[in-house]
Amino acid sequence: MSELRKDPLYDRWVIISQERGKRPGALKMKGKSGNCPFCPGNESSTPPEITADRENGTKPNDRGWRVRVFPNKFPALMVEGDLERERTDLFDRMQGVGAHEVIVDTPEHERPLEELDEDQIKRVIRIYRERIEDLYHDVRLKYVLVFKNWGEEAGATITHSHSQLIATSIIPSNLKKLLNRSLQYYKTHRSCIFCDILKEELNSGERIVYENQYFVARTAFASAFPFEINIFPKIHNYNFITISEEETSDFANVLKVVLKKLKQVTNNPPYNYVIYTAPNLIPKDGFWQTIDKDFHWHVDLIPRLTKLAGFEWGTGFFINPVSPEEAAQYLRKVNLV
Amino acid sequence: MSELRKDPLYDRWVIISQERGKRPGALKMKGKSGNCPFCPGNESSTPPEITADRENGTKPNDRGWRVRVFPNKFPALMVEGDLERERTDLFDRMQGVGAHEVIVDTPEHERPLEELDEDQIKRVIRIYRERIEDLYHDVRLKYVLVFKNWGEEAGATITHSHSQLIATSIIPSNLKKLLNRSLQYYKTHRSCIFCDILKEELNSGERIVYENQYFVARTAFASAFPFEINIFPKIHNYNFITISEEETSDFANVLKVVLKKLKQVTNNPPYNYVIYTAPNLIPKDGFWQTIDKDFHWHVDLIPRLTKLAGFEWGTGFFINPVSPEEAAQYLRKVNLV
Repeated sequence: MSELRKDPLYDRWVIISQERGKRPGALKMKGKSGNCPFCPGNESSTPPEITADRENGTKPNDRGWRVRVFPNKFPALMVEGDLERERTDLFDRMQGVGAHEVIVDTPEHERPLEELDEDQIKRVIRIYRERIEDLYHDVRLKYVLVFKNWGEEAGATITHSHSQLIATSIIPSNLKKLLNRSLQYYKTHRSCIFCDILKEELNSGERIVYENQYFVARTAFASAFPFEINIFPKIHNYNFITISEEETSDFANVLKVVLKKLKQVTNNPPYNYVIYTAPNLIPKDGFWQTIDKDFHWHVDLIPRLTKLAGFEWGTGFFINPVSPEEAAQYLRKVNLV
Repeated sequence: MSELRKDPLYDRWVIISQERGKRPGALKMKGKSGNCPFCPGNESSTPPEITADRENGTKPNDRGWRVRVFPNKFPALMVEGDLERERTDLFDRMQGVGAHEVIVDTPEHERPLEELDEDQIKRVIRIYRERIEDLYHDVRLKYVLVFKNWGEEAGATITHSHSQLIATSIIPSNLKKLLNRSLQYYKTHRSCIFCDILKEELNSGERIVYENQYFVARTAFASAFPFEINIFPKIHNYNFITISEEETSDFANVLKVVLKKLKQVTNNPPYNYVIYTAPNLIPKDGFWQTIDKDFHWHVDLIPRLTKLAGFEWGTGFFINPVSPEEAAQYLRKVNLV
């Protein structure tokens, strides 16, 4: 059982998870095709599947899946346990309740996400949506973060393309900051900060990377990392769960295009992306009452081209050696065939 | 000239520094002995020195130094410029005013910090102190972060042992959080949160790594990284600048011992350390009026044994696979000869 601890000084939560330390791949990449636990035929080497997108007539934990979900074998958090908090002024801890799941993006071992066809990427997105919705039925879980680590430098320990999700019993501090900021802006301006930013971005165009009918990809004005990209739905929507089928198509398209452009410009970098969406709010919680109007779900995509060093860790500042305007220009110029 | 930009959503400052992108070592380690710009005899390949600890009778920018300080050749921030802030609700930017200096810890190319004798480490510490004091004469500079990156994974681009400092025109957000937390605790308890934590730590002993007369090293209750270590002065003191000669000796000792222990247990890991001390407050600023009583300077030492991935980036939570109690036990057990 892992444990959540809150640091009394730095105001950050840490998951102390000795399970994770036992991962055989914790320190090196695994997964030559053949012995890869994520490949079709090796279903028995993962925990039993939670759900899958499957060809008709195929059975769970067997071949025939297109996208497959199962609990992480070395989970940072587990569903069992209670939420009692042992708390003093200096020490604050609770059991590591939550969920940690793996979503295998494709049966094809060698194929990165951006090389899948858009229909397959749509299946992955539908599974993201379905898993968040399902986990939000458990009221103990306050947030589900869907994310992807690609490449060893980005924290992936298995090469076969996969995504992950972690459900936490606490709204993560980064999301809380975003929610508070959105609320505060809404109170002053009676509009969504994301919608207002999008308007400005589309107007100036200098940080736009790509757009289709429903989505815009841009580099952020204050990108923390070179070639960091945000993807926003154009139509205001606070909740990823309510993504429509049409939007899912366009989301698959923007994800594929942006990753392909990034790969060409920066030579196949390791990357992470995360989806920021609404937490699992119980209506009577009340604090974020206007969340449907003030918040806007989106994706943050971070190529890992620079290393975090003492300065970033010590200050919370980031040093970015490539201006976002220049990065966007490079990315726009790429012609995909 | 670099630029500081504040992200409207994530409330973080970023330094957009295209200078840094030009570093030849930005992507690979430099410094085989002989062509190392930090080695004696190569003084002309760095910018002119700011200060140095030198043998009697030797001249600036020539051999004979024991510790040498000069501006970073590819600085993230520079002293020239003004502090005018261009600010709207969505975009907030200013010139990258500050300083970025390199402190070469030793003339010996091959010798890591913990292999220096304590007298040499004392010289390095004295230089840290002197540089902060000197830069604080410039009232535009609100904070000086002294830090060290050791090893490529920790962001070092040159192998010859060196420290750095960055002076910023803004109090970094991480420090602001620490200062606010200390103030809030002091208001409630009328005592220093660090002193209270130290009392508890020394009492239980389970996270103590090492202590001497003036310093304690411990792993934090909520360590974000495996084997993360904090070093605190035992006698309450908010300001590193006022460190005494006796304390300097003990600080050199604790730094050496802790790094040697860490090296043995975790097999010479890349690491970062940072010194958190008081910002350059003008007395009339007033907000942190009790800072001399509520804050406590200290060091955070982070071995880079795990990789930050999408989850950490997305949530602000950290996953640590080694409990701090276990880490401290391993470190205590090491016998240094």
